[in-house]
Amino acid sequence: MDQRDRPLGVFDSGVGGFSVVQRLRSLLPDESIIYLGDTARVPYGTKSKETVLRYALESTRFLKSQGIKLLVIACNTASSMARDELLNSCEFPVIDVVEPGARFACAVSQFGRIGVIGTYATCKMKTYSQLISKLNPSFKVFEHPCPLFVPLVEEGWVQGEVPKLIAKKYLTPLVPKKIDTLILGCTHYPLLKPIIQEVITELTEREIFIVDSAEAIASQVKATLMAKDLIKSKGNNFFKAYVTDLSAHFKTLGKTFLKEEFFEIKKVSIDSL
Amino acid sequence: MDQRDRPLGVFDSGVGGFSVVQRLRSLLPDESIIYLGDTARVPYGTKSKETVLRYALESTRFLKSQGIKLLVIACNTASSMARDELLNSCEFPVIDVVEPGARFACAVSQFGRIGVIGTYATCKMKTYSQLISKLNPSFKVFEHPCPLFVPLVEEGWVQGEVPKLIAKKYLTPLVPKKIDTLILGCTHYPLLKPIIQEVITELTEREIFIVDSAEAIASQVKATLMAKDLIKSKGNNFFKAYVTDLSAHFKTLGKTFLKEEFFEIKKVSIDSL
Repeated sequence: MDQRDRPLGVFDSGVGGFSVVQRLRSLLPDESIIYLGDTARVPYGTKSKETVLRYALESTRFLKSQGIKLLVIACNTASSMARDELLNSCEFPVIDVVEPGARFACAVSQFGRIGVIGTYATCKMKTYSQLISKLNPSFKVFEHPCPLFVPLVEEGWVQGEVPKLIAKKYLTPLVPKKIDTLILGCTHYPLLKPIIQEVITELTEREIFIVDSAEAIASQVKATLMAKDLIKSKGNNFFKAYVTDLSAHFKTLGKTFLKEEFFEIKKVSIDSL
Repeated sequence: MDQRDRPLGVFDSGVGGFSVVQRLRSLLPDESIIYLGDTARVPYGTKSKETVLRYALESTRFLKSQGIKLLVIACNTASSMARDELLNSCEFPVIDVVEPGARFACAVSQFGRIGVIGTYATCKMKTYSQLISKLNPSFKVFEHPCPLFVPLVEEGWVQGEVPKLIAKKYLTPLVPKKIDTLILGCTHYPLLKPIIQEVITELTEREIFIVDSAEAIASQVKATLMAKDLIKSKGNNFFKAYVTDLSAHFKTLGKTFLKEEFFEIKKVSIDSL
């Protein structure tokens, strides 16, 4: 098989990575994609590095066995905790979810004051801070965990009084930091982007640039495929989603994230990863 | 070893079962307890029956290997999905988290109109409805999922505007049901009991009896030990907590649930379950 016709591999701890797949499918409609959501062991954000690393290596092994040409780590926790190990274990390009968003934020930030919101694990690892200070040592980064955003999205409460109140509570500590750019450091957050934009504008009384990591990743994947001459020629393509646990809830949420009504989804046992 | 000196075994998907341990330690201070929290695979509430059953059997096998004299399934999802299989696989008494609360609610309900709040999985299984209608066929049960309560407790937001607003949103649909009793059908919910009591009283303008399942379980364990002559004689005892993933977050939350500052906690690999 022509290397270019091989699928892209994407994995996440759950359904969140579908926001990345949605952007990939819209930017690179000819590419085939294989997705793995480790829903039997979601979430990763509260787990230790050792455990997350083990799960990430298992997911990568599964996607390798499917003959992928590029790997997207569509999970912030796994990107923070397992990026280097995954890079070392793969003979094809690996794109994580942190670097594209960080680079994009550095490019658009006017005054070099960047806020990052994500899970406890992501913020605690300070991956964004470390990476941005390498890219531009004069930039200041302020990371702030918003752990209730993921369950809010999964409950479907993405507008109205409750998410607004929670967003206010989480974003208020960022106001005195005078940020000009805010990175959504979790693949669930794009669904809350309108309310985050509204609240941060209200609180700061300024326009804050919101960086949607999923968009940044899709652009980075396209650039990498072009640079390596791996862009698929037109023709048949497919999207296959595998999950380690298949629930009705996942199917419903999957449609919301993917903005598609029909897609192939199969269960794969954690033993076979 | 005298059968009576063996420890009680308690398992849950995560830290929630500590609310049961807290009640057990206060009601039965002489007993030894071994706890297993399957934190590497928490939560169970969004997973399929097949997966939850597998995890519950693995946890039970581990506790059996520790020589327990009684098993408490301190997880509502596992109680709903795996109770019968666990009963069949154990040669000692097994107490689940659903039956004691259901029995207690039936005993205290004045007009036989009982509300139950829990995770999606618990409410969908309708375990409380089925059990209560067996205990008293004339009783009406109204189950309502409150999935954001668990992350709220884990975030430590158990009082103030946000939990109050969320509780109002979740409990309002129960008002027209004219319930007189409300079962907290999740081991995380006892920490929200004050706010739930406040909101349901405000909404219904009546006193609603709140059934804390953890309290009901502890009473049932005591009654069972007495009936089977398994009460431990005074003397040395211990409390050991095992988790499949050990994070700083778990240690902090554990103290809140347990209302104790110091306790022994060890990691056990999921491979050895």
